[in-house]
Amino acid sequence: MNALLFDGGLRFRNDYPEPACGKGESLVAISVAGICATDLEIVKGYMGFRGVPGHEFVGRVIQSGRPGLKGARVVGEINCSCGRCDLCRRGLQKHCRSRTVLGIQGRDGAFADYLSLPDDNLHILPGKISDQAAVFAEPLAAACQACDDAGVREGEEVAILGDGRLGLLTALAFLAHGTRVTLIGTHRQKLAIAGRAGARTVVSGEAGRGGPYDAVIEATGSPDGLAQALAMVRPRGRIVMKTTVACRHALSLASLVIDEVSLVGSRCGNFNAAIALLEQGRVDPEPMISARYPLSEGEAAFSRAGDHDALKVVFLNS
Amino acid sequence: MNALLFDGGLRFRNDYPEPACGKGESLVAISVAGICATDLEIVKGYMGFRGVPGHEFVGRVIQSGRPGLKGARVVGEINCSCGRCDLCRRGLQKHCRSRTVLGIQGRDGAFADYLSLPDDNLHILPGKISDQAAVFAEPLAAACQACDDAGVREGEEVAILGDGRLGLLTALAFLAHGTRVTLIGTHRQKLAIAGRAGARTVVSGEAGRGGPYDAVIEATGSPDGLAQALAMVRPRGRIVMKTTVACRHALSLASLVIDEVSLVGSRCGNFNAAIALLEQGRVDPEPMISARYPLSEGEAAFSRAGDHDALKVVFLNS
Repeated sequence: MNALLFDGGLRFRNDYPEPACGKGESLVAISVAGICATDLEIVKGYMGFRGVPGHEFVGRVIQSGRPGLKGARVVGEINCSCGRCDLCRRGLQKHCRSRTVLGIQGRDGAFADYLSLPDDNLHILPGKISDQAAVFAEPLAAACQACDDAGVREGEEVAILGDGRLGLLTALAFLAHGTRVTLIGTHRQKLAIAGRAGARTVVSGEAGRGGPYDAVIEATGSPDGLAQALAMVRPRGRIVMKTTVACRHALSLASLVIDEVSLVGSRCGNFNAAIALLEQGRVDPEPMISARYPLSEGEAAFSRAGDHDALKVVFLNS
Repeated sequence: MNALLFDGGLRFRNDYPEPACGKGESLVAISVAGICATDLEIVKGYMGFRGVPGHEFVGRVIQSGRPGLKGARVVGEINCSCGRCDLCRRGLQKHCRSRTVLGIQGRDGAFADYLSLPDDNLHILPGKISDQAAVFAEPLAAACQACDDAGVREGEEVAILGDGRLGLLTALAFLAHGTRVTLIGTHRQKLAIAGRAGARTVVSGEAGRGGPYDAVIEATGSPDGLAQALAMVRPRGRIVMKTTVACRHALSLASLVIDEVSLVGSRCGNFNAAIALLEQGRVDPEPMISARYPLSEGEAAFSRAGDHDALKVVFLNS
């Protein structure tokens, strides 16, 4: 099959073996797959991953042992758990000790013609949602998780730091729930997408940042984001942390203790909530697609996805 | 009156003026006052405080405009709010922008014959609680706050890092609520106090630390405590942070995001919960008193409180 392989370099292959389909797994023919910040990190060596990257996808099930799945158009959760370790038994399957993660850890991903995933990971899509909207289900689920983690009550105000893909989607998800949102970023074009959906937008470093906010979502991707968030949140407020900074960096958390702030690490989320927002048209992510490529132009697609002004870059399979 | 004054150095005075009693405030004759880690920091210059330190006390109201307070034996909350700023209006009086804090910020404290506090800050003590137990009401309230912030459910396990005053009291508070507790510290004598109350105890650096824990209370007072806590908490677990480290220090919070851990800054707490634990005899803090001094021996008392093997050092007024 066609696949984009990362084996230290990124290369297109038309003879890559189709994925094996284990017991309880389905084989999915991929229609659309999205490039995410994690993919850009993977091709820089993050996680030491070797194989086919890609974890945001829409496809059609072509082989499955589970009645009702074959032929269905699906999106899929990316963490595959063992079901047996202490964390799985505690209900923490997403954190399974021997988990594989689609296109990220121990399992080939979505930048290919086909992928395999456990039946339990798949969500059948309602017909209303287009493929190019549905490819946002995974990152929108992560955005919905940020909304849950922020625990915002009626009348509270949220600030989002970072106007990248995740920051923007999080702004759209909060707005869909009727929350007042201020998005702080560096790209006027990206801010404008949230602005049209009803967010107040502020260019980072300019006046009018406002606050203190009841909750701040830290999605800058920068080691400095947390200190900014701490300066903007009210006492006893919440900071939801989306940025993963692997390196140690200098920081004081004194104000977290003195102001009794909660800092919540937030990663993957609830697909059902995301699919519902897409089906009801309450979040329209398609304007966030900056470019479309075939798999055979993988390098160009990754290069475009890394541009500062780019939002979502997707692969379309014919 | 007698008072222990910090004006760059710590000195005993027998001619210090009695505190003024503002509108809505009571004057309290102090019986017992406790030295806390914050006091030890204050005499090193923390907060730039000048005046009479001390914020843990028991006393008797000798002047008050509020019916029922005069003559009552009381303990008192330490944050005095303006009632008018945006934070007070949001119900965040403890974080009032122009607050004074007893013996810490803008208000003389408890290492004296008398102090004044707003009537609203005072809690009348039940007769059952001795003065030398009641002097723990303030730090025990902070320990109860850690229990609340940890959000522990039935069957969950808690680790407490640090066997100082606050770590020990937090262990006793959790045990009083029937929670399984592992206390990790460096002093066998201090650990033994929690051990006798039912905690599992582990000497830091030795084997048997156990985990992963549902919640970890970070009360080491050290910049390294948080990294230890992150290594011991389960995915989606909670870390309650009691340590205030003012300096910037190197840290990676990647595992907080990947493991979706919540980090909750925790400071002052609910006096009612603490007084109830003392009244019902469910926490017995008196074995934690290492030494008793008169105010006139202030320097010796501070020196003793700073010893590694010391727990609570108190001043007794005659």
